[in-house]
Amino acid sequence: MRDPFLQAAIDEAKKGLSEGGIPIGSVLVIDGKIVGRGHNQRVQRGSAILHAEMDCLEQAGRLAPADYKKATLYSTLSPCDMCSGTALLYGIPKIVIGENQTFQGPEDYVKSRGVEVSVLQDAECITLMQDFISAAPELWFEDIGKV
Amino acid sequence: MRDPFLQAAIDEAKKGLSEGGIPIGSVLVIDGKIVGRGHNQRVQRGSAILHAEMDCLEQAGRLAPADYKKATLYSTLSPCDMCSGTALLYGIPKIVIGENQTFQGPEDYVKSRGVEVSVLQDAECITLMQDFISAAPELWFEDIGKV
Repeated sequence: MRDPFLQAAIDEAKKGLSEGGIPIGSVLVIDGKIVGRGHNQRVQRGSAILHAEMDCLEQAGRLAPADYKKATLYSTLSPCDMCSGTALLYGIPKIVIGENQTFQGPEDYVKSRGVEVSVLQDAECITLMQDFISAAPELWFEDIGKV
Repeated sequence: MRDPFLQAAIDEAKKGLSEGGIPIGSVLVIDGKIVGRGHNQRVQRGSAILHAEMDCLEQAGRLAPADYKKATLYSTLSPCDMCSGTALLYGIPKIVIGENQTFQGPEDYVKSRGVEVSVLQDAECITLMQDFISAAPELWFEDIGKV
């Protein structure tokens, strides 16, 4: 059975896709409960910073510093430099990643800073991104700042 | 004479302070022109992600990947892990920092990734943060995820 929190992140990714957006989703889990969820908002809100993980953390709201220290951040895709840096800022100790085959962020650096990183290589996460990148490569390159 | 772009970032920081917020400001400069400006929005918008640099990049809007490659990001304070990571995501080649005495982000790591980092140690930037941290230490610790 799929990890229910990864499932919730995938549900967010699909919601984004149904809105015409980039299909990446994220949830933040504390004490076994989802406290924030989000998906990439580049298209929907014309945002340069609301990757799925950022949207999720913003939806979670202003948490106490101690809360982040017991959180797990789920994302359907390997977090980029921005989203990885945000996890480091708040000292989130664990990141669970749907897949890192279509894109891989600075996982080694994040691990070197003491974060536990788990990559599930979920087939549906991979397909979601492969299909999207094939259909809209320029939008994808914009999202990761690739010239 | 002070760098006029640092001055614009300081103006943003003061605007934030006048709103009851955390006095950190930022501007994004491309081809000698300010294309985005912002200030920390934790208090004003209840935001967990809108540090000054993030607010600035969001205000700049969706830029072409090539635009970021000729940009300079100014901040009154040394960018944290989140904001540094965002500069890395977009391949912003230069960061100008007002001061890094009251807080220092991962400057060495950012430099190791090829970014030019310039620290001006501006006295007014230092005073702005020192006064703010003395007045509202818990808000400051929340902003940097410090327990």
